[in-house]
Amino acid sequence: MLNIDHKEKIAFLDCTLRDGGYYTNWDFDDGLLDDYLEKAGKLPIDFIEIGYRSKTITDYRGAFYYSPKFLLEYCKGKTDKKFAIILNEKEIQLQDLDELLNPCKGLISLVRLAVAPSNLSRVVELAENIKARGFLVSVNLMYASKWQDNLYLEKSLKRLNTILDYFYVVDSYGGMHPSEVAEVFRKLKGILDTSLGFHGHNNIEMALINSLTALNSGATIVDGTITGMGRGAGNLKTELFLTILHQKYGVKVNFDILNELSDLFLEVKKEYGWGTNLPYMVSGAYSLPQNEVRGQVKKRFYSLNAVISEVGEIGIVEKNQSIPFLNKKKDINEFLLIGGGKTPQKFFGVIREFLRKNPEIGIIHSSSKNIEVFADLANFQIHCIGGMEMNRLQHKLTLDQLKSRIFVVSRKKNSAFNFPEVYKNHIRRISEGNFQDRYELSATAMAVDIANFYKANMIMLIGYDGYDYGATKEELELFKENQCIFDAVETEGMQIFSVTSTKYEITTRSIFSLI
Amino acid sequence: MLNIDHKEKIAFLDCTLRDGGYYTNWDFDDGLLDDYLEKAGKLPIDFIEIGYRSKTITDYRGAFYYSPKFLLEYCKGKTDKKFAIILNEKEIQLQDLDELLNPCKGLISLVRLAVAPSNLSRVVELAENIKARGFLVSVNLMYASKWQDNLYLEKSLKRLNTILDYFYVVDSYGGMHPSEVAEVFRKLKGILDTSLGFHGHNNIEMALINSLTALNSGATIVDGTITGMGRGAGNLKTELFLTILHQKYGVKVNFDILNELSDLFLEVKKEYGWGTNLPYMVSGAYSLPQNEVRGQVKKRFYSLNAVISEVGEIGIVEKNQSIPFLNKKKDINEFLLIGGGKTPQKFFGVIREFLRKNPEIGIIHSSSKNIEVFADLANFQIHCIGGMEMNRLQHKLTLDQLKSRIFVVSRKKNSAFNFPEVYKNHIRRISEGNFQDRYELSATAMAVDIANFYKANMIMLIGYDGYDYGATKEELELFKENQCIFDAVETEGMQIFSVTSTKYEITTRSIFSLI
Repeated sequence: MLNIDHKEKIAFLDCTLRDGGYYTNWDFDDGLLDDYLEKAGKLPIDFIEIGYRSKTITDYRGAFYYSPKFLLEYCKGKTDKKFAIILNEKEIQLQDLDELLNPCKGLISLVRLAVAPSNLSRVVELAENIKARGFLVSVNLMYASKWQDNLYLEKSLKRLNTILDYFYVVDSYGGMHPSEVAEVFRKLKGILDTSLGFHGHNNIEMALINSLTALNSGATIVDGTITGMGRGAGNLKTELFLTILHQKYGVKVNFDILNELSDLFLEVKKEYGWGTNLPYMVSGAYSLPQNEVRGQVKKRFYSLNAVISEVGEIGIVEKNQSIPFLNKKKDINEFLLIGGGKTPQKFFGVIREFLRKNPEIGIIHSSSKNIEVFADLANFQIHCIGGMEMNRLQHKLTLDQLKSRIFVVSRKKNSAFNFPEVYKNHIRRISEGNFQDRYELSATAMAVDIANFYKANMIMLIGYDGYDYGATKEELELFKENQCIFDAVETEGMQIFSVTSTKYEITTRSIFSLI
Repeated sequence: MLNIDHKEKIAFLDCTLRDGGYYTNWDFDDGLLDDYLEKAGKLPIDFIEIGYRSKTITDYRGAFYYSPKFLLEYCKGKTDKKFAIILNEKEIQLQDLDELLNPCKGLISLVRLAVAPSNLSRVVELAENIKARGFLVSVNLMYASKWQDNLYLEKSLKRLNTILDYFYVVDSYGGMHPSEVAEVFRKLKGILDTSLGFHGHNNIEMALINSLTALNSGATIVDGTITGMGRGAGNLKTELFLTILHQKYGVKVNFDILNELSDLFLEVKKEYGWGTNLPYMVSGAYSLPQNEVRGQVKKRFYSLNAVISEVGEIGIVEKNQSIPFLNKKKDINEFLLIGGGKTPQKFFGVIREFLRKNPEIGIIHSSSKNIEVFADLANFQIHCIGGMEMNRLQHKLTLDQLKSRIFVVSRKKNSAFNFPEVYKNHIRRISEGNFQDRYELSATAMAVDIANFYKANMIMLIGYDGYDYGATKEELELFKENQCIFDAVETEGMQIFSVTSTKYEITTRSIFSLI
């Protein structure tokens, strides 16, 4: 049985608006905000974290990324709860604190600093300054699953000991086991006298047991969010924690209000769908950034085996380091870059005619979708193999067509499965390529690097049609990324245009005018 | 760190088809089945549980409730994995085993018996008989969170010791904490030499840590389902368990196949939406049947506070035992029972005219939705207050209108919140009522009991319109339940008919013919 030491009161902080903001870009409807504040105000929540306080950035972010004074005042008018805000340590300097914290006076009780272990020594001055302004101050130290790599933490911690009101252990990857949490707190108790906290993520569904373990191991405050709303797999669920707090420790909870509140956010969840899944579980188990893993798997159809092979052996993955580099017999001035859209099939006749008339134009395939349309042409053809494309592609070409092809795979990331034996002699990687460096795993970036490798001065696009209304989040992200790549190509002086109509913002010519 | 004793090999059983069947009524598309068997066949799964083997019941259930021989043969043709089936002990006798198990010979390796603690002594004969037929045999003992109430278990367990291949601890309510799991296994190790297993549910998100704790405490087999598909909050997620098994213990897992498999079931989840939520968390924490809690809260808009107050004090609930019983001045022969549908508003004029002309007809409101339509009429009006209806209703009546009203609440279940002071003198419960006994918490059942109490011989319905295409699961369940109540009322000899068109199967007359 759990055996929380009741000599110290346990505190609970709800950070739904801050961590949930990762899904809503820190915008919440006024109605939802009012309901949240009203209902949270009636629950055993000690602090409500309103959001980040941030310096101005150029991208749009909503109210709870900046938590401006009028918002703090508005919230203050709705509930008597104590408020917290959080600062992202790596984005601020000591001289920013006036601007960031003066508007918080009298409105905010607790100021938290989200800090990476490598920056912990830098945080002492900030914490002292914040404390001197009359706020409670907390350091939330991230990436707890990797702290064992940071042997220098102890010295910095000791310097913080007399300054902080709370020191939080943040399981950023959400992959810690309770025994590991207990061990971290055992160590911290030997170093710090300050109150300890735990902020758990739920990638491997350990947020609750880890939070309870933290409390059993000396923590006196934990964080949660309604329905676990938060980046990727999300956080400890406030409603789950309060249920256990009520059942095991008799803390009074109005479950009807808690249920209404969680129902409100379950509605929002229908739109955004936070919560764990296999890619997030893998991020948790291996302490990998979850957006990177999700992006590779959901957006690029990249191999989860390949992701895991980066950190541990799996034995069913091609090690790309052993793949020979691409070499060339001669330069190619012009390339037709073929994407996965529908236009190549629609303009079937004219494109084939254009390529037949211009046999010196090279073809780069960034997708396996339109391979058949050009399978029999004599033009030089080269394929960018992102993710598990090889599996799709291998049934689309005859052995004869295969002969003259080259398949370019990622220079860095390992590839899924063993390649079919018959393809092995045709697989290459490029020794350098600055687009691949910037847009890891993007097949379009790989294509541009190939064109550069052949010293091309022109890329014609077809099948880069853009996405329709109703596109998935992953599709829109790819769309934006491709747009950035095209913009950069133009900036660097290469001619790039689409030969059919497209939703990308790019020069367009007509394939019919080129023939 | 976890420290599984590697002297004994750990086995894993996937019971997606069996436990997932609770959502699909044990039907799965052929395509999904083929994909499941093919992919599960390539993962480190030791047993695949195909489903129940069951005696014929009258309700429809799909293939995986009966697991007929042709299905077992079909599955056997798709994978080399060992198969399990499960029998529901309370539904079978020794003499049923020929019919249930003869078709399994050569197809099924493991036969499991799902058993309630109260029946454990009965299971010895069954287990012996199954063992003698050449199957591996397992007893899966349910409701582990309540075993401490069953001090007689030890004797029965000892009799099973030499018979069983596996003895499973089933956390039916999904609310055990790891320390409790460890304690159960510590006790079992002192009684049984047989291999131990753990079947975890995920109501409070402890399925993984409990399964790992079980393995650390001597279990050698655990169960899971893909994406946790299973009744209510669902099970240990197979993909989560295999991720941890790979990361912590180096078990080989093909993550791309695992990801494809979990993606297939995530598609199915979009339709059925298993997984935990606050009502299921409460079921877990308090060892309450989750369907009952969900039904009360989601279907009846009943109070979660009231649910919890049944098992523990919460202090914000009206104790219904203290509410006076309904009494009457005289009998009322005819009632108009007004449901929550749209017809009362649509037929506004004619219904009011009908009631004005017949002031002796009583009005029973089973919903608060249409109260305003009749607020000013002089007819006797009585309200059935299910769940938290009082909260909705209290702003709909003037103090003057309130005077002659009666509000009837559940005889058994406590009510949410304190009633508004001004209502207190008008609240009653009925001392007897067989419909309420059969359909606990149904406002319609309560209404019929009220009509009976007043010795009515006729109930006219309005606002029981039935549900449209697109009705929620909860609405359809209420629809079916109301239909059963109407059928029973008719059978018992009371006149009952709808005065407007309705989708219920019930006698219909026209309100225009009655005026």
